[in-house]
Amino acid sequence: MPQKSFSLSRVYQLLESDPVLLVMASHKGKHNIMTLSWHTMMEFVSPLVGCVISGRNYNFDALRLTKECVLSIPSAELTKQAVGIGNCSGSKVDKFKKFKLTALPASQVAAPLIAECYANLECRVVDTRMMNRYNFFVLEVLKAWIDPAQKNPRTLHHQGNGVFMVAGDTIKLPSKMA
Amino acid sequence: MPQKSFSLSRVYQLLESDPVLLVMASHKGKHNIMTLSWHTMMEFVSPLVGCVISGRNYNFDALRLTKECVLSIPSAELTKQAVGIGNCSGSKVDKFKKFKLTALPASQVAAPLIAECYANLECRVVDTRMMNRYNFFVLEVLKAWIDPAQKNPRTLHHQGNGVFMVAGDTIKLPSKMA
Repeated sequence: MPQKSFSLSRVYQLLESDPVLLVMASHKGKHNIMTLSWHTMMEFVSPLVGCVISGRNYNFDALRLTKECVLSIPSAELTKQAVGIGNCSGSKVDKFKKFKLTALPASQVAAPLIAECYANLECRVVDTRMMNRYNFFVLEVLKAWIDPAQKNPRTLHHQGNGVFMVAGDTIKLPSKMA
Repeated sequence: MPQKSFSLSRVYQLLESDPVLLVMASHKGKHNIMTLSWHTMMEFVSPLVGCVISGRNYNFDALRLTKECVLSIPSAELTKQAVGIGNCSGSKVDKFKKFKLTALPASQVAAPLIAECYANLECRVVDTRMMNRYNFFVLEVLKAWIDPAQKNPRTLHHQGNGVFMVAGDTIKLPSKMA
């Protein structure tokens, strides 16, 4: 649960397989959480992440106005919470309270980390040129944290319409793709 | 191996979990293949896919000039081929020949489908405004195909540096996220 600093140059190893993420934003003194599957790495160092956050989400305006957020990676043990968070709106619900998650202060942004997640990434919005057309934000990861107590966490991957794949076995092959 | 038409409105179910993709482009009478992990859904219908294709890839220029490609989804049975394709350059190698893959003609683009993959998506480039800065292309899927003989294919997910996660079990929970 305590979070330990993690190298920015290795952030792509956390995100490249596209796990379901939680996105925290903080606006007008209120923290909110949403669930996100539509994201991609865009650069290794400084790590850039592109993500689509629909204008129907309560976090859209918070992100647009504060230009900050935290991305957290839940393991499959938090599946129910992740889905529940995606099924209600921050305009009506305090999701930290409802889903019994612990907000930890971040070091560089106002949005909080989630103590129960195995990785937390503090981000700022660095490009909004595709926001109006595609709801697409480019984020730079400023600071990364992991929970060293969670060994080999199994990530969640949304396949659409409420079907989730839980990460299976890993294999290692010689690769130059990194 | 024969490919059957697949609904465009369900394409996100193929891509949302971010499987490793093969990207085919055809330029100057030559087909090429590359491996891709950095992509995200951007819209349900018409399906839009954002992807980062480095300028160091042979396919970058083909995509930039022809504005067309095919995205194929290999199952884990094609892991060795997918990794091999990512480890050599189309400037030197005929990858269809080297990796014993079967090119099938597409219906709307010059780039070929791959018969051995369980899904093939014919795409055109619809936005290059972020190409120069981020190597980021926005693709529209024009036509989708699946191989109905491949039941419950297990996808591959790159975790960086040659480590791949093979899709594990799926679970279904009530979701409004779609």
